[in-house]
Amino acid sequence: MRERTEARRRRIEEVLRRRQPDLTVLLENVHKPHNLSAILRTCDAVGVLEAHAVNPTGGVPTFNETSGGSHKWVYLRVHPDLHEAFRFLKERGFTVYATALREDARDFREVDYTKPTAVLFGAEKWGVSEEALALADGAIKIPMLGMVQSLNVSVAAAVILFEAQRQRLKAGLYDRPRLDPELYQKVLADWLRK
Amino acid sequence: MRERTEARRRRIEEVLRRRQPDLTVLLENVHKPHNLSAILRTCDAVGVLEAHAVNPTGGVPTFNETSGGSHKWVYLRVHPDLHEAFRFLKERGFTVYATALREDARDFREVDYTKPTAVLFGAEKWGVSEEALALADGAIKIPMLGMVQSLNVSVAAAVILFEAQRQRLKAGLYDRPRLDPELYQKVLADWLRK
Repeated sequence: MRERTEARRRRIEEVLRRRQPDLTVLLENVHKPHNLSAILRTCDAVGVLEAHAVNPTGGVPTFNETSGGSHKWVYLRVHPDLHEAFRFLKERGFTVYATALREDARDFREVDYTKPTAVLFGAEKWGVSEEALALADGAIKIPMLGMVQSLNVSVAAAVILFEAQRQRLKAGLYDRPRLDPELYQKVLADWLRK
Repeated sequence: MRERTEARRRRIEEVLRRRQPDLTVLLENVHKPHNLSAILRTCDAVGVLEAHAVNPTGGVPTFNETSGGSHKWVYLRVHPDLHEAFRFLKERGFTVYATALREDARDFREVDYTKPTAVLFGAEKWGVSEEALALADGAIKIPMLGMVQSLNVSVAAAVILFEAQRQRLKAGLYDRPRLDPELYQKVLADWLRK
């Protein structure tokens, strides 16, 4: 039993050392539980410490097995409204990119995700609202080379977040702990209780 | 009305000119309709002409709105069994990579997707079977830097297929038609009837 606890603690510390406090997503009205779960699972895979949401799952935060338990390891901070979410992120130095199919949107691969970055995703059917687009620092899009014009929101989130992972791996941002010591100890204590 | 038909034809030809006959997926027992739809939608976005499957959706091919109609624009060839699927792909010069969480699996970003490539994905819960792994030319995996060890199958497919898109865009493989003239006319006629 002692070995298992030791192994688990080593595993948790290994993951915590790769957490990226300056990479996140802001989910606006993403209602379908399997989408929210899949996005949190991708967040875990690329090291997001905390995700942000406005009005997730229509107010009833239900997770299903698609998340594979990742909602345990990625904090989800739910903001009362868009303005509060943007204030929180802007205060902490995040550049917020909105995903949008607009002509003037940049190719998502042109963004430097090694800087503090939040990517905003909108509801499955409607995408990001005009209000959120106006608040964002810029619009980005995924090149769609077929007949269909948009991707499922959890697929789009994965494509963009793994580009961020690719850039951060290259920049060595997973090679050393990035949480300040106090936050590291606080999260470690919380995770060990899970 | 005539302008609309002309615009539609131009749109269809534009997409057909970017179709990649030598990039595809092989889906082994991917049963959940929303996963199959999301994967076909990603296939359309990166220009896959035809996808391959063994035993999709437990035999009842149902698509739902997640696919956004992409199953209309990506052919799905269902093979009676794995051996038949591999024979078909190997005969046409495809290298088949299986996604698998094995220690010896290569990082998916190390693969040259500009060559004729098929990526094999397995069932949601179990992943690729041992039988399929043995038939494949190699195993690849997506670096998972968090606590959860695997991604949702449609998310994994998107991450890998958009890496293929990134490489093929860079190599200019979307800049000129890649279907032979006869196949081009055949598909064009079929698409115009849709």
